[in-house]
Amino acid sequence: MINFHTSPDKYKHWKLSFDGLVATLSMEVEEDQTLAEGYKLKLNSYDLGVDIELADAIQRLRFEHPEVRAVVLTSLKPRIFCAGANIYMLGTSSHAFKVNFCKFTNETRCAIEDDSLHSGRRYLAALNGTASGGGYELAIACDEIYLVDDGNSAVSLPEVPLLGVLPGTGGLTRLVDKRKVRRDRADVFSTLAEGLKGKRAKEWGLIDDTFPTSKFEQSIAARVKEVTQAASLRASESTQANSPGYNSGVKLTPLQLESTEDTRTYKYVNVKLNREKRYADLTMRGPDSDLPTTADEIQKLGDAYWPLQAYRELDDALLHLRVNEPEIGLVCLRTEGKLDDVLALDKTLAALHDHWLVREILLYMARVLRRLDLTAKSFFALIEPGSCFAGNLLELALASDRSYMLNNPDESNEIATSQLNAGALPMSNGLTRLQSRYISDPDRAETLLKSESSFDVEAADEAGLVTFAPDDLDWEDEVRMAIEERTSLSPDALTGMEASLRFAGPETMDTKIYGRLTAWQNWIFQRPNAVGPQGALTNYGKPTQAQLDYKRT
Amino acid sequence: MINFHTSPDKYKHWKLSFDGLVATLSMEVEEDQTLAEGYKLKLNSYDLGVDIELADAIQRLRFEHPEVRAVVLTSLKPRIFCAGANIYMLGTSSHAFKVNFCKFTNETRCAIEDDSLHSGRRYLAALNGTASGGGYELAIACDEIYLVDDGNSAVSLPEVPLLGVLPGTGGLTRLVDKRKVRRDRADVFSTLAEGLKGKRAKEWGLIDDTFPTSKFEQSIAARVKEVTQAASLRASESTQANSPGYNSGVKLTPLQLESTEDTRTYKYVNVKLNREKRYADLTMRGPDSDLPTTADEIQKLGDAYWPLQAYRELDDALLHLRVNEPEIGLVCLRTEGKLDDVLALDKTLAALHDHWLVREILLYMARVLRRLDLTAKSFFALIEPGSCFAGNLLELALASDRSYMLNNPDESNEIATSQLNAGALPMSNGLTRLQSRYISDPDRAETLLKSESSFDVEAADEAGLVTFAPDDLDWEDEVRMAIEERTSLSPDALTGMEASLRFAGPETMDTKIYGRLTAWQNWIFQRPNAVGPQGALTNYGKPTQAQLDYKRT
Repeated sequence: MINFHTSPDKYKHWKLSFDGLVATLSMEVEEDQTLAEGYKLKLNSYDLGVDIELADAIQRLRFEHPEVRAVVLTSLKPRIFCAGANIYMLGTSSHAFKVNFCKFTNETRCAIEDDSLHSGRRYLAALNGTASGGGYELAIACDEIYLVDDGNSAVSLPEVPLLGVLPGTGGLTRLVDKRKVRRDRADVFSTLAEGLKGKRAKEWGLIDDTFPTSKFEQSIAARVKEVTQAASLRASESTQANSPGYNSGVKLTPLQLESTEDTRTYKYVNVKLNREKRYADLTMRGPDSDLPTTADEIQKLGDAYWPLQAYRELDDALLHLRVNEPEIGLVCLRTEGKLDDVLALDKTLAALHDHWLVREILLYMARVLRRLDLTAKSFFALIEPGSCFAGNLLELALASDRSYMLNNPDESNEIATSQLNAGALPMSNGLTRLQSRYISDPDRAETLLKSESSFDVEAADEAGLVTFAPDDLDWEDEVRMAIEERTSLSPDALTGMEASLRFAGPETMDTKIYGRLTAWQNWIFQRPNAVGPQGALTNYGKPTQAQLDYKRT
Repeated sequence: MINFHTSPDKYKHWKLSFDGLVATLSMEVEEDQTLAEGYKLKLNSYDLGVDIELADAIQRLRFEHPEVRAVVLTSLKPRIFCAGANIYMLGTSSHAFKVNFCKFTNETRCAIEDDSLHSGRRYLAALNGTASGGGYELAIACDEIYLVDDGNSAVSLPEVPLLGVLPGTGGLTRLVDKRKVRRDRADVFSTLAEGLKGKRAKEWGLIDDTFPTSKFEQSIAARVKEVTQAASLRASESTQANSPGYNSGVKLTPLQLESTEDTRTYKYVNVKLNREKRYADLTMRGPDSDLPTTADEIQKLGDAYWPLQAYRELDDALLHLRVNEPEIGLVCLRTEGKLDDVLALDKTLAALHDHWLVREILLYMARVLRRLDLTAKSFFALIEPGSCFAGNLLELALASDRSYMLNNPDESNEIATSQLNAGALPMSNGLTRLQSRYISDPDRAETLLKSESSFDVEAADEAGLVTFAPDDLDWEDEVRMAIEERTSLSPDALTGMEASLRFAGPETMDTKIYGRLTAWQNWIFQRPNAVGPQGALTNYGKPTQAQLDYKRT
């Protein structure tokens, strides 16, 4: 079982150090500390275990070290920054694992960009050696890339020429969409196994600058100084940087979790696996009514504050289901609690959104909900009396492929919108889930937000907020049949269908990475030319040569 | 060998009839007239042969019947409009054929929407019986959908529940992006094998209206009348409808073509296959200098007018290479002729763009160039002395993955922009190819258009219009090595790479269909759950049940 919990004292592959406003994240992969057997992590190549640490480090930077303004990614090994995802690991992994591995690493790189965009931390890739494949894709997720000019070190995406697969962590999309490298140059670069060195790499826009070995460290230091000075100037005017507690951060303590073979019980999140029927029940308990309403008190609560703790638990549950429970095809989402308590909480969060911690919490909630949107499992929201699908928790229903709301005249059953449905928790395509739902009628999303009231079953159905509203006589049968039907369908067809229906409207670099690039990569990961007995990925490093079927499809 | 040439007198599956401003395109598929063996086209199901006729009919409508303002798509069979792509055909086809089949049918549906958007013909799907799968996807490519209310007829997308694949012709994307069906309803509809009938289908936005059997024909006729009356009103003010020759159209005569085992020679397009080396040379001869400059003369020339004839030939050559030459992985594009002749032609086309025929020609040129963008082969433009990569033909170089321009001080070698590079020939993503190339520097595309001059090798290289400019000593070796290297790479990885690098910037419904939906479908078309010995597609109609591996990926 793969465990996503870690913390800096347990890191095997990264060193995280701090110096005032600067954090340095140094890669020194322990080649024997692999997540599975059968490969060694040479040359700072990585497996999922290495990336789980990276994701944790980025998350902790945001909560535990909000004062940090510049993050330097570099390597402690000579002449190599990072050789990318380990090829032998990929070659020996199942298709499903490869896909999930790429998805998680993509989310980690998007988290870097989310931090840069929303929290203003600037990421600098200090490439003290070659960055190839996923190594360069990690660099290109940073804001700035500097490459040592030592006559040898290069940046490269050798996947197509060497392995017959794509750079799977957003590289192709970021080349043309983020760094806006000319498409013909991107074509040349992506088919050039040895990549490009300093001068040409800079000319083509693949890196921002190159420095000779003797001046590399001081040049990076000089650039970091510029970044932090500019940040300090901005900070003097920033409500963020002046909000209380900014310089102390909030500690992310280990999640408490009890698990049995069929259950996974956190404090606010509960997962029950119905393995034979291939679905899981995931219930999220809403906040209590006595939550603090001031920033000071919230910071004192720290990671025990409901939105942070509950969403950390949800995040962990989603990752667990993705990677460790592949046969679970459907997740039934429920909530428990009081609408008013969620609405009161959302009001606090909205009112304090300028406070650094509240801001980070909201950004994190948004990332977790996006993780749900991008999970290759069906989601049904089951809205029953005693539930609290309001505001931030209403997003769970809106993110679901369908929602069922129990219509029993004898029991109150309501849902409600809050300010947080208006833009604080956007999808990867930049829309809110309400905008996405009412793409045929954009005014409707606005009206529903203005109503500031709760919706009973009839009103919710009328407003189009739920898919079905069976009465209490039909409820059990209808839900049971929907579950049975869903879990009987081809899991592959469902994954492709959901990836198409969930993202109506605009596309962004993120959705292009998850929807276009990933889908092509998944296709290629199935093709004999990559993974067949004589495929390029299978044959990498072997004395035999790959045998390709040259038919173009 | 699959032949894309046809004409109404040869149609086996469609009847095309005219009544004033109205064309009726009626489907009556001959079940025995299949393109391959092993299946029967029951229930108006289709194979590529049926779609080649449909594509031809739509193309002819635009050129031969410009006066038509409403096109009714219907069926001559009782109780069935169209059952979609033939499942046994799909089940027995190679992966490559399935993919190419879906791409062509997608292009045909996009051509319907292109006609509606740009030429104002309104397409009405008159569903006199059930439209399932590709049948409903054909309907959803139309502007309006009417379904008979006979107690039986339904619209449906049964691919996911019955076949374990996706609706492969844009259906999922058009559901949520074109008809803006609520995503949870789209989810229910797309997993419901039997689909939805009149009232609910209308309520959910899947159709525009439903009429009882007894009133179906007259209701369609009434709606057609509304459409043509509105069109006539608009026509009185339209320069299009008042341009000379509008009511007579231009006849599309059969393309003349000589072919040998290794060559394909049209009048202006020449294809030479280097099968052992897996690449083709495609040379396009530019226009002569004595082309007409008035609309009357152009209409007199009809389909012998260079832009129409040359692009029809290019279109046919591309389709041929795609479907009949799968091992050809690279196409080297050359042109022959005088820059000035192309520029003079482009000037005429730009000046007369309000004339109906010139407008149709420009829209067609744009579609052919988009067909090139979407072809799963690499393209290298080879720009040598004697070539004429100017204006519309410069688009060939801009559409290529790379371009090589020969730098020989003793021979003049130039390229040039024209007005037609400024927006008349857009890519599927809505950008011009110059905008796409200079996505890092949008002003540059503008400046290059304003310069209105030709670029010699140095200027072209300086401006970033070409990838490489080898001198005459290196030319032969460099081109040869580039060809050898390209054709040695994994064809699957190249397809995925090109699909990512060619489309920087915005996405549209079209690019979502080709880039996101198609990639997922291709993946699913490889998965054992669909095409394995016990997969759902393989097992359809057999007494055995499909056996699915329920692991979610």
